[in-house]
Amino acid sequence: MKELEERIRREGAILSETVLKVDSFLNHQVDTELALATGREFARVFEGEKITKVLTIEASGIQFAMAAGIALGVPFVYAKKKKAVTQSDKVYVAPVHSFTRGETYQVSVDQRYLNAGDRVLIVDDFLATGAALVGLVDIVEESGAELVGVGCIIEKSFQEGRGLLEAKGVRIHSLARIAAMKPGEVQFIEESGNRQLIEERA
Amino acid sequence: MKELEERIRREGAILSETVLKVDSFLNHQVDTELALATGREFARVFEGEKITKVLTIEASGIQFAMAAGIALGVPFVYAKKKKAVTQSDKVYVAPVHSFTRGETYQVSVDQRYLNAGDRVLIVDDFLATGAALVGLVDIVEESGAELVGVGCIIEKSFQEGRGLLEAKGVRIHSLARIAAMKPGEVQFIEESGNRQLIEERA
Repeated sequence: MKELEERIRREGAILSETVLKVDSFLNHQVDTELALATGREFARVFEGEKITKVLTIEASGIQFAMAAGIALGVPFVYAKKKKAVTQSDKVYVAPVHSFTRGETYQVSVDQRYLNAGDRVLIVDDFLATGAALVGLVDIVEESGAELVGVGCIIEKSFQEGRGLLEAKGVRIHSLARIAAMKPGEVQFIEESGNRQLIEERA
Repeated sequence: MKELEERIRREGAILSETVLKVDSFLNHQVDTELALATGREFARVFEGEKITKVLTIEASGIQFAMAAGIALGVPFVYAKKKKAVTQSDKVYVAPVHSFTRGETYQVSVDQRYLNAGDRVLIVDDFLATGAALVGLVDIVEESGAELVGVGCIIEKSFQEGRGLLEAKGVRIHSLARIAAMKPGEVQFIEESGNRQLIEERA
């Protein structure tokens, strides 16, 4: 998605070879128009898939799940990282390890909100190590719902997340795929292919 | 907002005289159409206020801040409950006590995303004790931005939050105001007034 790549080039701050900061427009301050555009793009890419529900994880996935839900005309569900006082005991649970925080937490979804009849699109802001997304995929499997695919806003293609999801047979569509980055420079993978950029690094 | 009150009556689960569970359509599974409608309603109520930014707090405020941002055509910012690895040191901070979790945490907003020129609408899902919203109001004051008002989806009018905000001179608009509740029954305050219902209880 060209518009997104341009914003990342212009406003993204590359803090290291693995850390990209996009909090001026994606995940602290949010450009609502850009967020809506990402939702329309996922609706276009997954057209005809009869998606009934979008699934994400709190907190920074919510704005993109909402945008996808709007574009698809369906509700979305966000997995919780902490058990709420009001939460039911009948939940699907998956352990997720956070590398940035150095801790493992349990993400959960109330069983009433994912069912065997659902066709689910998982959406999140980043695909990097894939830890959170693999957890969500496991939750969809456990629920008996059909997983249509995973839509990510930014993929760090030099990390292992895509490989982990592909090994599970999951269809992935990322709106901006970063082949490599270093302070002051970000290199995207063209949508049409150019896969060898990653394969050379693997 | 009649549509919202009807959904609360139909789908809300009243777990006690203070705990209302609305996670089937507001804050776990989210009805995107209803969320968008709340944004349009805030845009109508605060029309002419030249709002430049919507502010909320992660996680369950995000979908409503997004909806308000869409309706107003402005970006939104969500305050963070934990310091992110990518976060700047130049942040506005306010302590917020969570009664449900029994802990005090620091909420923060990057100083680049709230400025003296901004006219801010704060949006959140619940107004109850007011703890989180008072923290956000303090952050707006610290930033030098102008606070236009606070918009809440559900107000538990029998708790102290509204009083705390009114004492600070804040304009508040809640889309559903609950005067009292007990399992199986919820009593709303009419939009046109009926304030004495609260005052009698105070």
